[in-house]
Formats: sequence, structure tokens, C-alpha cells
Amino acid sequence: MDDEYYMTLALNLAKSASGQTSPNPPVGAVVVKDGEILGMGAHLQAGEAHAEVHALQMAGEKAKGADIYVTLEPCSHHGKTSPCADLIVGKGIKRAIVAVMDPNKKVAGRGLEALRAAGIDVKTGVLEEEAANVNRAFFHYTQTSTPFVTVKTAVSLDGKTATKTGKSKWITGEEARMDVHRHRHSHDAILVGVNTVIADNPSLTARLPNGAKNPLRIILDSNLRTPLESLVVTDQEATTWIITGNQVSDEVIKPYNECGVRVIPLRATEPDTVLPYLGRHGVMSLFVEGGATVAGSFLLSRRINQLVQYMAPKLIGGVEAPASVGGQGFESIQNSMPMTITSMEKIGDDMKLIAEPQEDDANVHRNC
Amino acid sequence: MDDEYYMTLALNLAKSASGQTSPNPPVGAVVVKDGEILGMGAHLQAGEAHAEVHALQMAGEKAKGADIYVTLEPCSHHGKTSPCADLIVGKGIKRAIVAVMDPNKKVAGRGLEALRAAGIDVKTGVLEEEAANVNRAFFHYTQTSTPFVTVKTAVSLDGKTATKTGKSKWITGEEARMDVHRHRHSHDAILVGVNTVIADNPSLTARLPNGAKNPLRIILDSNLRTPLESLVVTDQEATTWIITGNQVSDEVIKPYNECGVRVIPLRATEPDTVLPYLGRHGVMSLFVEGGATVAGSFLLSRRINQLVQYMAPKLIGGVEAPASVGGQGFESIQNSMPMTITSMEKIGDDMKLIAEPQEDDANVHRNC
Repeated sequence: MDDEYYMTLALNLAKSASGQTSPNPPVGAVVVKDGEILGMGAHLQAGEAHAEVHALQMAGEKAKGADIYVTLEPCSHHGKTSPCADLIVGKGIKRAIVAVMDPNKKVAGRGLEALRAAGIDVKTGVLEEEAANVNRAFFHYTQTSTPFVTVKTAVSLDGKTATKTGKSKWITGEEARMDVHRHRHSHDAILVGVNTVIADNPSLTARLPNGAKNPLRIILDSNLRTPLESLVVTDQEATTWIITGNQVSDEVIKPYNECGVRVIPLRATEPDTVLPYLGRHGVMSLFVEGGATVAGSFLLSRRINQLVQYMAPKLIGGVEAPASVGGQGFESIQNSMPMTITSMEKIGDDMKLIAEPQEDDANVHRNC
Repeated sequence: MDDEYYMTLALNLAKSASGQTSPNPPVGAVVVKDGEILGMGAHLQAGEAHAEVHALQMAGEKAKGADIYVTLEPCSHHGKTSPCADLIVGKGIKRAIVAVMDPNKKVAGRGLEALRAAGIDVKTGVLEEEAANVNRAFFHYTQTSTPFVTVKTAVSLDGKTATKTGKSKWITGEEARMDVHRHRHSHDAILVGVNTVIADNPSLTARLPNGAKNPLRIILDSNLRTPLESLVVTDQEATTWIITGNQVSDEVIKPYNECGVRVIPLRATEPDTVLPYLGRHGVMSLFVEGGATVAGSFLLSRRINQLVQYMAPKLIGGVEAPASVGGQGFESIQNSMPMTITSMEKIGDDMKLIAEPQEDDANVHRNC
């Protein structure tokens, strides 16, 4: 077995806790000596033990002289838990293999420094790309203080999200719709526009066979038109925030508050205003589910980090049938958002496509 | 080597002549004895020798006692050439392996009967599906007397064919656009709506590095608005037919005729009227290239046999940016056209997707 083998195990441990560790990253750790696995651990929830702690605890006394594989640089600062770097040193670990550095300024190389200072043999960059991918919401959040944004669309082959009469049940099949619930579960918050709430009255919960964490529900609603009887207001299944314009009166807001819904007046309900607010309030990842106007505003502000698109093998047609991304749109092809398709798979009868903005684009355009 | 091996060779011969044999099907033939290939042939052009003739000619005297592999049932009727079944018998072939039966009523089993009557050992169904696929335009044409219709679209990930300001150069990359020329070459005719001619002034020719057959150009133009200075009227690169309404006066038609363009007044320019007309005039396959209204009318009349869709990894957005399939569109998801995605490949930076209507659909809906 080699370093990549054990790091793969550690990455699988990290992935299994993906979506439940926010605002911390998912991390996995494996302790190995003489080809024998002595301990395995993952960080499961913010405030609880880090991956290294679980793995070293499982290894016990045997950890002395062993190797530790960690998917993210061990922390060196006192947070809600003691520094993992100190623990690794204290347990007598001989060699530490780390996939990727922590971009968090409180760590950023200091974890590795602490290990090296104690004479531990440190190797970095093993499966670095995979590890960065597992942690990409955390990395984005750490670097920008705004949530990692996934825009979800579900369209026919000809790009329609509904017929001209607004019928959309169901364009995609059951497997694709179940997959949407998995994506909801792995994000901190789901965001939709008020028109989607009015048209579909969705519950926006993650309904998986064995249960799931329900993300925060966020409604963009400049004029506070969310019906008081809508599920997001009444069903108590998850926390709901409604982002509204700051012209809305306290009188109008009051009945929402009485239902336990938080109404948040901001000066604008555009992504450029909303995302920094959400970032300040601990939302690390956001799943944008509709409709076309909302997707359009995220596109125009170039605030999309990932597109998850389900394509049903159907043709619907109709010049009046709606498309997935509306709003203003770009004026020229040259100025449109170039993407890289990172995966394409069949899911039931449908295709699922994942794409990310080409890196240059985000850098080039954001500050224009 | 086995039967499938030699039939694959025969199918490759057939495919190589695909697009140049209309109204005949592309056919390939291979003559084999004792594991040695003695002759190979393909039907290259209507009116010229059939595949079996070329292959048997190459084999010469050695054909006696050999096996012949043919991708389509040999003909048994006197057409522009003598019956191939007679030739196969006359050359002393011992065994005939045939991929698929000819749906043409003049043949339909009689070719095989003639071979069997002469004591030849006949085997059918070897790579039948592949052979039917190579011949699918011919089969469709033979069975319906209307052209096989391929609709081409080129869209962004969010299903736009242009920006809101109508800019569409270029959504897809050079490789995808070159691939479009290959599809043009392999169809008998290209069809666009007059709005596409007015907006883009396309030449609608097949421009391939080593030359290509230019298909017939067909413009749907109810009120004869095609500009007299447009390339399809003036460039003499290919034959142009303009299908117009029968209210258009001879006076208006005359200058088009003087440019060598045929103006064809029909009672309607809808697919249900146009396709039988084209079928009667020898158009076996049609490549529909735009715009959205034309694609929409082919969809609504359920006259699409194949969709070739190029998807560029871009997001354009905009509620006013056009989609690929317009027109009326279907009112309900249940009534939309269910498709099967038969292939999906990367072509340059773009994705190319090929889909066909689910067979049931054509049967169920056509007569409603």
C-alpha cells in the first residue's frame, strides 16, 4: 500500500461527513503503522472533535511511531478544541502526510510548521486536488467570506423548465429528484425566489429514505409577498429566512416573526448584497433552486461556483415556455460565462451534468 | 474470424458511402473464402453498380464456392441495374450472410427467396441493429415516403441559441461547426426558415477540408420574403428550393426563377404538407438547421426522427435570449416528445448529444 491508498481512505471518511460540518470543513484522518490501520476518524460536526482526535484516540498507545494521513492541514490554534498539531506531536507520531493546506489565515502553514518543529517528517500534496475538491465550499468561504453557490436547474433537452402553460411536474424522473434531495442535504442553505414559493409552494426540505439534515431555507422577496400560509412559513420543518427590501414595514413583518420566520430587510436582494450577509451569518454553502430570474441574477453577478443541471430526454418546445436562466442575461457571447463540464452521468432516464466556471473567468471579471 | 467480423467490414464500407447514395441506401459487401478476403465493394451512387457487383467483380473466378456478406438484402428486381440475387447465384456463391432485410416492397424477402431457391445457404440478422441504423434514413423513407428528419441545435448550457441582442457567433467552437458540415454532407437537403436567411444570410453549404457534396437548400418562406441578394439565391453553390404559400403571385416568383432558384407554392409550409412533397421529389433525408420557429413546427407535428444538439459550456442567461425550439410547444409534460439519448460525446470544448424519439411515441401519437 502507498500514501495515495491511505489518503483515499481518509478522503472517503471526509466525504461521508460532507454537508454536516459547516462552518468547518469535512476532514478525514487515518493512523497507520507497518501497513496496519490503527485508527480512523472524521470531523462530524462543528464544535465536536476533529478527525485527528478520533483517529488518534482509536489508535491509543500504538500511535507512537506511526504515520498519520490527514486530508487537511492540522490546526495549530486554540479554537473550540485544542490544536491537533500539538496532539499529533504529543502522541509520538513519526510521519504526517497531508493532502492540502488550510487556507484559513489562523492555520495556513502554521500547522505544518508546528509538526516539523517537533521533528515529525511531513509530506504534503498527496491527492491534493481531490482534497481541495472535497473542501471546495470551505475553501471558497474561507477565501471570500461568502457562501459557495451551487445553481440547480432541471430542463428538457430543449432547455425548458416548464411548458408554456407553466406545467413542470415532472420534467425529470424520480431518481433525479431524489438526487436533488442529496444536494440539499449537503448544503447549508437552499435559496429560491418568492415567485417559486407562490407558484409551487415547495417545502424545500431534504427528503431522503434514511433521514437528512434540513438546510436553512432562504427566500428572496423584495416586497415580502411570501404567502403566510405557504409551507416554508408554516411547516416548522426547517428554519426559514426571508430576505426583503428595507422599505418593508415592521407591521407587515410581524406575522412572519410570529410564525418563527426571520425577515431580514437588506438594501437590496441581489446576490452582491445577499451573499456577504449570508457569509457573515455562517452560511458556507448555498443551493440555488429557482426560478429563472433568481438564477439570472446570480449569473449576471458572476456568483455561480457550480451548476448542477438535470436534463430530461424530452422535447417541450414553445417560444413562451420558460428557460432555466432568465433575468437580464449577457449581451454578447464573448462576455458570457465560460464553464468547464466536470461530470456527466446518467441518472435514471435523465442526464446529470455538473459544470464550474472556468477559473480565469472569475478572476478576470469579478473586479471589472 | 467470425460472421460479425466480416459483417463489420461490410458495414464500414457502407458507412463510408453514407450521404452520397440517395435515394438508394448505403450498402457494403465482402466476399470471403477459407478466411481470405477475395472482394469488397460498396454502393457509391444511385444508378451505379450495387455493392455486391463491385465485390464479386473484385473476386472474379475465385467467387465460386465463397461466402458473401451483405449489409442489406440483395435486390431481386430489375431496376437501373440487374438483380444482385441473380448475380450471386450466377457466380456460384455457396453461403450468403445478410445483416438486415430490405423494407422496400419490391424486395422484402424476395432477394433471400431467390438465393435459397438456388440452393445457397442463407443466414440473416448478423449485426442487424447496426445495419438498420446505417440505413435508417432509407428505411424511414421507404416506409413513410417522407424524408428522415434530423433537427440540429447549437445551444449554451442554459439552452440559449443567442444572447438577448441576437448575437450567436459563436456559441459553439470550430470542431462542432466542422461537425455540422459533415452532417450537411450526409443529408440530401438542408432546411431553414426565411427568418434565418434574413438574419444570418447563410450559404448552407457543406464546407469540408477535402470537399463535400452540397445538399439541396430548402427555405420555408410562406410570403416569399427571401432577399434576392441572399447567398442561397445568388451564390450558385447548390440548388435552392423556396417553399412558399400558394397566394404568392408569378410576378413575385419570376426574379427568383431567373436566378435559377425554384419557387414551390404549396397550400401550407408546415411539415405535414412539406415533407410528403419533398418525399415525392426524392428527398430521403433532411437536415433542419433553424430557427426556433421551424424546429417548433417540426416538433409539434412530431416529425423529428433525430436531434443533433451541440452544447457549449457557457451560460448566457436572459429571459429574452432565444431558445432552440420555439413555436407553439406542447401544453403538458405528458404530451411532450419523449426521446432516447443515443450518444453523447465531447467535440472540442463542446458536448454533442444525439437523441431519437422513443419508438412508442411515434406510433402512439402520429394518428391522434
